[in-house]
Amino acid sequence: MTRNPSRAGAVLAFAFALLAPAAARGQEDGSRISEATQACLFCHENLHPGLVADWRLSRHARTTMAEALAVDEPARRVSTPGVPEELRDVVVGCAECHTHAPDTHPDTVEHGEARVHPVVTPRDCALCHPREVDEYGQNLMAHAYENLLGNDLFSDLADRINGVESWTDGALAPRTPHAATTDDSCLACHGTDVQVVRRETRDTGLGEMEFPVLTGWPNVGVGRVNPDGSRGSCSACHTRHEFSIAMARKPYTCAQCHKGPDVPAFKVWEVSKHGNIYAARGEGWDFEAVPWRPGRHFSAPTCATCHISRLVNDWDMTLAERTHRMNDRLDTRLFGLPYAHPHPKDPRTSTIRNRAGMPLPTELTGEPVATALIGADERAARRNAMQAVCLSCHSRSWIGGHFDRLDHSIATTNESTRTATAILLDAWRQGVATGPANGGSPFDETLERMWVDHWLMYANSTRFASAMMGADYGVFADGRYALAANLRRMQTLVRLDGGRR
Amino acid sequence: MTRNPSRAGAVLAFAFALLAPAAARGQEDGSRISEATQACLFCHENLHPGLVADWRLSRHARTTMAEALAVDEPARRVSTPGVPEELRDVVVGCAECHTHAPDTHPDTVEHGEARVHPVVTPRDCALCHPREVDEYGQNLMAHAYENLLGNDLFSDLADRINGVESWTDGALAPRTPHAATTDDSCLACHGTDVQVVRRETRDTGLGEMEFPVLTGWPNVGVGRVNPDGSRGSCSACHTRHEFSIAMARKPYTCAQCHKGPDVPAFKVWEVSKHGNIYAARGEGWDFEAVPWRPGRHFSAPTCATCHISRLVNDWDMTLAERTHRMNDRLDTRLFGLPYAHPHPKDPRTSTIRNRAGMPLPTELTGEPVATALIGADERAARRNAMQAVCLSCHSRSWIGGHFDRLDHSIATTNESTRTATAILLDAWRQGVATGPANGGSPFDETLERMWVDHWLMYANSTRFASAMMGADYGVFADGRYALAANLRRMQTLVRLDGGRR
Amino acid sequence: MTRNPSRAGAVLAFAFALLAPAAARGQEDGSRISEATQACLFCHENLHPGLVADWRLSRHARTTMAEALAVDEPARRVSTPGVPEELRDVVVGCAECHTHAPDTHPDTVEHGEARVHPVVTPRDCALCHPREVDEYGQNLMAHAYENLLGNDLFSDLADRINGVESWTDGALAPRTPHAATTDDSCLACHGTDVQVVRRETRDTGLGEMEFPVLTGWPNVGVGRVNPDGSRGSCSACHTRHEFSIAMARKPYTCAQCHKGPDVPAFKVWEVSKHGNIYAARGEGWDFEAVPWRPGRHFSAPTCATCHISRLVNDWDMTLAERTHRMNDRLDTRLFGLPYAHPHPKDPRTSTIRNRAGMPLPTELTGEPVATALIGADERAARRNAMQAVCLSCHSRSWIGGHFDRLDHSIATTNESTRTATAILLDAWRQGVATGPANGGSPFDETLERMWVDHWLMYANSTRFASAMMGADYGVFADGRYALAANLRRMQTLVRLDGGRR
Repeated sequence: MTRNPSRAGAVLAFAFALLAPAAARGQEDGSRISEATQACLFCHENLHPGLVADWRLSRHARTTMAEALAVDEPARRVSTPGVPEELRDVVVGCAECHTHAPDTHPDTVEHGEARVHPVVTPRDCALCHPREVDEYGQNLMAHAYENLLGNDLFSDLADRINGVESWTDGALAPRTPHAATTDDSCLACHGTDVQVVRRETRDTGLGEMEFPVLTGWPNVGVGRVNPDGSRGSCSACHTRHEFSIAMARKPYTCAQCHKGPDVPAFKVWEVSKHGNIYAARGEGWDFEAVPWRPGRHFSAPTCATCHISRLVNDWDMTLAERTHRMNDRLDTRLFGLPYAHPHPKDPRTSTIRNRAGMPLPTELTGEPVATALIGADERAARRNAMQAVCLSCHSRSWIGGHFDRLDHSIATTNESTRTATAILLDAWRQGVATGPANGGSPFDETLERMWVDHWLMYANSTRFASAMMGADYGVFADGRYALAANLRRMQTLVRLDGGRR
Repeated sequence: MTRNPSRAGAVLAFAFALLAPAAARGQEDGSRISEATQACLFCHENLHPGLVADWRLSRHARTTMAEALAVDEPARRVSTPGVPEELRDVVVGCAECHTHAPDTHPDTVEHGEARVHPVVTPRDCALCHPREVDEYGQNLMAHAYENLLGNDLFSDLADRINGVESWTDGALAPRTPHAATTDDSCLACHGTDVQVVRRETRDTGLGEMEFPVLTGWPNVGVGRVNPDGSRGSCSACHTRHEFSIAMARKPYTCAQCHKGPDVPAFKVWEVSKHGNIYAARGEGWDFEAVPWRPGRHFSAPTCATCHISRLVNDWDMTLAERTHRMNDRLDTRLFGLPYAHPHPKDPRTSTIRNRAGMPLPTELTGEPVATALIGADERAARRNAMQAVCLSCHSRSWIGGHFDRLDHSIATTNESTRTATAILLDAWRQGVATGPANGGSPFDETLERMWVDHWLMYANSTRFASAMMGADYGVFADGRYALAANLRRMQTLVRLDGGRR
Repeated sequence: MTRNPSRAGAVLAFAFALLAPAAARGQEDGSRISEATQACLFCHENLHPGLVADWRLSRHARTTMAEALAVDEPARRVSTPGVPEELRDVVVGCAECHTHAPDTHPDTVEHGEARVHPVVTPRDCALCHPREVDEYGQNLMAHAYENLLGNDLFSDLADRINGVESWTDGALAPRTPHAATTDDSCLACHGTDVQVVRRETRDTGLGEMEFPVLTGWPNVGVGRVNPDGSRGSCSACHTRHEFSIAMARKPYTCAQCHKGPDVPAFKVWEVSKHGNIYAARGEGWDFEAVPWRPGRHFSAPTCATCHISRLVNDWDMTLAERTHRMNDRLDTRLFGLPYAHPHPKDPRTSTIRNRAGMPLPTELTGEPVATALIGADERAARRNAMQAVCLSCHSRSWIGGHFDRLDHSIATTNESTRTATAILLDAWRQGVATGPANGGSPFDETLERMWVDHWLMYANSTRFASAMMGADYGVFADGRYALAANLRRMQTLVRLDGGRR
């Protein structure tokens, strides 16, 4: 038994490459692969067979930019008007992305005859997909790192979650979390701060080579701060190295970050009629087609259908425009904050302040900070854009009743959070808990955590259930049942704790 | 970018219809589509392409009743002996259902040249499927609306969940829930009360048209109260507009309402050997076949296999009869009530009273209200009917051992609920909590909610795990681990709260 | 309607067998099925059509041992050098397993002309697969029964979970669980103790027959104690009667026992990039191929890929050896115990004692019991074996960063458990709870249960999330959010309860 086959593999890679089976290397027409990419493949196909195999499955591996540009709307998949001449007639391979504009990438290293950067960023992708990158940059998700850690309040919550407290003299003592914990926790989805710390030389079996040492690596979070200063990671959804549109359109991609109790979108959708139809009948649907036609290519929406994809009918009339600004069809921000509220105008939310000076888009009473949020017209336009998708399969009466119920659910869950907040404020006033006014964190006591559960879990879950008709998540599965019980538990704790004092 | 494409679409629909691609309209032989349905399709195929595409995929769209009636048992899919002459030679399209017996449907409106009702009900379906509709009407689910809201106790629980309490003078004050909340919460699965409030005229882009305004709409709950007085919604399981038997037989359909912590049937099955086989190998199974043959069409049961479907062996011997009375193979009602108990005789359960006068099928000690529940012979017959399904793949020893364990689990979980109830009764007696005898709701204090968790979540979960061999749901996932911990928590709260008083 | 069709079926089976459709019986070349197996099939194909159909789908049903032995490495699927002559030229049918070495099986009964044992054990499988059975026997899972019930501490926890307490004189009184409860609970996964109690004669419809009456039956737990003294059940993963390698390689098989909150491995993987790729793109992958080639046969790993399967590249170089000792590629045991620690040397763990004399592989401070655990060299070798799998698709920088983060997560979750343990020890010292030093169980009070939740649920979940990049399980879904909140809750309870005393 070979305990360390990988090293042996690396050492032998060069030799074996010469003997590589034609079948494994000849899937694409080699003449369309650039020489630079062929040089990459020569070693890496042996070192990382799975990685290269994924790329060989991709549309990138079998399409030149000339071909991509020759496709007319609405079927075109690239948004650039053109690319440099040297990229026109080669497929999009390793070198086309990993050696693009090397001087703009602080992680660039000399690697064989190439100057390679490991961290491919949205700026690289923008060479062919500039519109998508631009839209994505206007997205809340693109700024998920700063929106979390640049917000004093949320940053405090993150620290209270990630810092491992000690038990010292009969009391819990807070500790600042290590960066590795936060990278592994919140920033796994929000995106890490990837910076080049230094370069190091490693013996690779193919000789000594230089590699960058990066903070926050690996990571494919949606708001990743890249070494080149750009934000986000396209491969968060368009998974390396197939970059498949089909995969991005399937719900599992979103579920990576939108399945937990704080944002149970996937789970809610899964038990909705839409999720049911997808699970039972989705096998034969066409997830590759551009443009995407309801009824013809699929029978029920996934996340992408309602939020992102361009939909057209059989007469090529546009039902919904493609957008990578994910809230273009969303009038209300349902989750992540104490109260649901109109979407912020600017995707950089950490600068918002309410009247009390807190970095929140609502007051603690739920009243929106109107100046920072979209107004009635924009809200109506966004809702209308969403309902245009619904109309593919539903009547106006059905849609109207559904959205009325959603609005009602937003109002009542906000009301429930208002009650929970009132209990907390009373407890702070009475000294049963220690709030900011008395120098305490709002997140480090049991009662305070119950309050966070209230809005971050239960109210969110209930609203998602209303938005997507995933019934149980609005009742017993962290829904209204939990909201009602949590108010009682908060009252009980205040009573017990108050009695003690 | 067109922000409001749907309206433009509606306006242009008529014009475009004339140019409709043959491919989109010619999937079925138009000559078998009734003229009335063709009139529907003329506009609606453009207005709601996904809706119509679903129907085009359906067996309804490609089968006339004459053809359906020509099929001999056991392969026949309709249970009527015959239908009116004018329906014999057309496929089952829009008009055949939505304009059937218009005078019996209070939601009927004049719509073009037709009298259309939007809410198709089981009575419409009974034209071709009378036996299924009849059986379904004898089903607990068909009466899920009244069984919940017509029961004072359960209705109080629903109100305590759905009513958003306020924090007034340092205490939680109850509020009656809005109908929209209950519709969106409990009634999403149980079914809403759909009534015609009024009619309204809307400008549709194809001119002014009249539409009914309905309460509780949209909804596809299993016990929906329809405008025509009928109960239930066949499309709860046979999803509009494909009405696929395959989809109804797949477990995701049941999971829409049977996945939450109160009834984790799907999740339990999913981690059972049966669920594992389905997930790993089910791709090639035949979910369309009637009759359904174990071993030939599938290798492991879904929900429908054990509870509903007609199963025959290769010699056409019936292993299990088809039934839409879902508890025909169930001797014990495992969930939803404080104690597991023999199934009620009558599916309308809100009239049951125990000796204490409570609307429950057991005493608070767990003793069944025998007069209202099926007796030993019927229980044996039902268990036998279920075991006949098991025998398709399992020996009698295996089955015997399995059911012994289930019976034991029913007994011990009931015992655990008895202990939880004893704690609650003691607390009520001692004034640590306020029970009905002192004018309190049994559902509005933390201790009372713990008691509800005990039976509605943990005892149910444990029994489901025993019934379907989904191990973890009987231990750590809301199973015996939770049951044991919850008793401790109840004791702790009584002690803390008692000490305070 | 036939309420009892199964009995009628049994009575008629003999008659119908004579008329059996050729199609149902002729899928395999009958001449290669042994006469003994043909005798089994003659009745059982009618009695249990699903069971036999599964076998007919199997590789066993269409392969003779001569054929299996003729396959060269690395494609060979059997590990024996040879089998008895009479087994060489028949396929592996009912009789080949169920009548093998009857005298070694206490559950053997006379059955028609055969001596049949219902409980097929790893010893039977070892006739053709001796290496796999040997490796599996060195596996923690093979000893899961004794490792649980032979360990006083864990056995006490099991009893506290499974014994249904009564409410007697205002206090909870413990009760010893019934064996049937423990069989249905912990032992569903760990494996039951299957012993022959007696034999009984039953009227089968084909005449009176003798059957063994077994304890703990049915069961397919991984550490099942079999009547022949062997340990385990190969069909826990290689589900009867298809025994498919594809099914064992799919993640649902592992999920049967590794999905609950105590070991959410499946759920974590499911939201990882790996799980996402599998869900979105796995349909066309080849799960039957031996050997298994990354990139060619699949694009992302399932459980088996990383932990069990033999992986080779296109030049037949071995990337990872096949192993049925599941921790061969695992340096650290992440779950099930208060602290993560190096894997034990011996899979029989109930004999380990820490300095305090407790049957644990660490002290209560987390310090490992070094003598019982693997050392640094073995740990490095195992980690290297795992990383060789990672290298199929990832660079060394990526892998290095990932494992650094995992190590950090192991350290911080252990630290959090150390804090929880300090709170508990303080509570025991102060008499707020009653610990072992004062004659109490460490598992029968609310505070103690919180402590168990800490390591058995939240710390485990966080570590799994780090190990497989399933982000939310490291934060809001029973991750660091729960760890931090639980410490607070423990402190609150100690304060409230301490104040009361």
